[in-house]
Amino acid sequence: MPKIVDHEQRREELAAAVWRLASREGLDAVTIRGVAAEAGWSTGALHHYFSDKEELLLFAFQTVAGRVGRRVAVAREESGEPLELARALLAIGLPLDDERRDETRLWFAFLGLALTRPPLARAQRLAYRSWRRMVADALRGAQERGDIDEDVDVEREAAGLVALVDGLAVQASFDPDCLDVGLVDERLAGMRSAPAR
Amino acid sequence: MPKIVDHEQRREELAAAVWRLASREGLDAVTIRGVAAEAGWSTGALHHYFSDKEELLLFAFQTVAGRVGRRVAVAREESGEPLELARALLAIGLPLDDERRDETRLWFAFLGLALTRPPLARAQRLAYRSWRRMVADALRGAQERGDIDEDVDVEREAAGLVALVDGLAVQASFDPDCLDVGLVDERLAGMRSAPAR
Repeated sequence: MPKIVDHEQRREELAAAVWRLASREGLDAVTIRGVAAEAGWSTGALHHYFSDKEELLLFAFQTVAGRVGRRVAVAREESGEPLELARALLAIGLPLDDERRDETRLWFAFLGLALTRPPLARAQRLAYRSWRRMVADALRGAQERGDIDEDVDVEREAAGLVALVDGLAVQASFDPDCLDVGLVDERLAGMRSAPAR
Repeated sequence: MPKIVDHEQRREELAAAVWRLASREGLDAVTIRGVAAEAGWSTGALHHYFSDKEELLLFAFQTVAGRVGRRVAVAREESGEPLELARALLAIGLPLDDERRDETRLWFAFLGLALTRPPLARAQRLAYRSWRRMVADALRGAQERGDIDEDVDVEREAAGLVALVDGLAVQASFDPDCLDVGLVDERLAGMRSAPAR
């Protein structure tokens, strides 16, 4: 099916162009015209993929979400114990290097757009639910091994941890020095089972 | 000085128009033309106040920040004990009613714009620093009274609490049902001095 492969390749190309443009100039620059110029396509060719700016923005969000998804796969592959996986899943949302700084800033940029765009709001809602669920599952795994206390409500802790990470990332977006990862680690450490006395 | 009073009144009028427009249609709608129409002014009259869209957006941010500032004043007036004040200061960032839901959503909408606008990024940085400082001061007050443990690092706890509140507000922006205020209360309760045994 060479045609489908082509189509996928071209979407990848577009995603890369959208990412370069957005991380460099912000979402304001993500227009049919701007993306066409960045990708070296004609606007006509781009209209073959997106009928309007709304579809393009949803694609841009999915591009950022796709990058985050690849980090999730790496976290799963590289993390040994469930608590380590929980920490790795949370660290995905922290702007700890230039790439993640760009990702988190763009992620939040979509927040404002979602205010008036239900499809974008839906995509973000689902992304957060999925993130909370993955963290909760990892915490549950840790609980089953006895690594964290059996009294811990893993769903609530996951919600609190994801919120903490997100809030730290919001502030670090304009104040990089204020990012205190220790706050996340302490919270995780606070759930650990007390050693038998 | 009737002229100055007029000027202030007109700025208030404009702030009200910007707020109505932005909370109803999002920041996309906050243009010189859009605000002029909402306020019933000519675009020429508006240009007397703002030379370009950037100045208008900064004014819009200050309008939202001004609403938040009024909530801070009320919190100070109505809160008795320092811990109560800390909680009230944190609750300002939680979308617990329609007004605060609009405020927090718009607040986050500015995040995306700040990505490419240094004056807006600076305004947000200062706003967050001020919020963290106010919460830290309230926690320090509670510590001095012996209400929270003397080992608690109030600056870090304030940063963690503000981040938690912000992250909860981000998620509640598209998933109102997931707002769990208990997570904030538990965190505050966890700092309380242990009763003498």
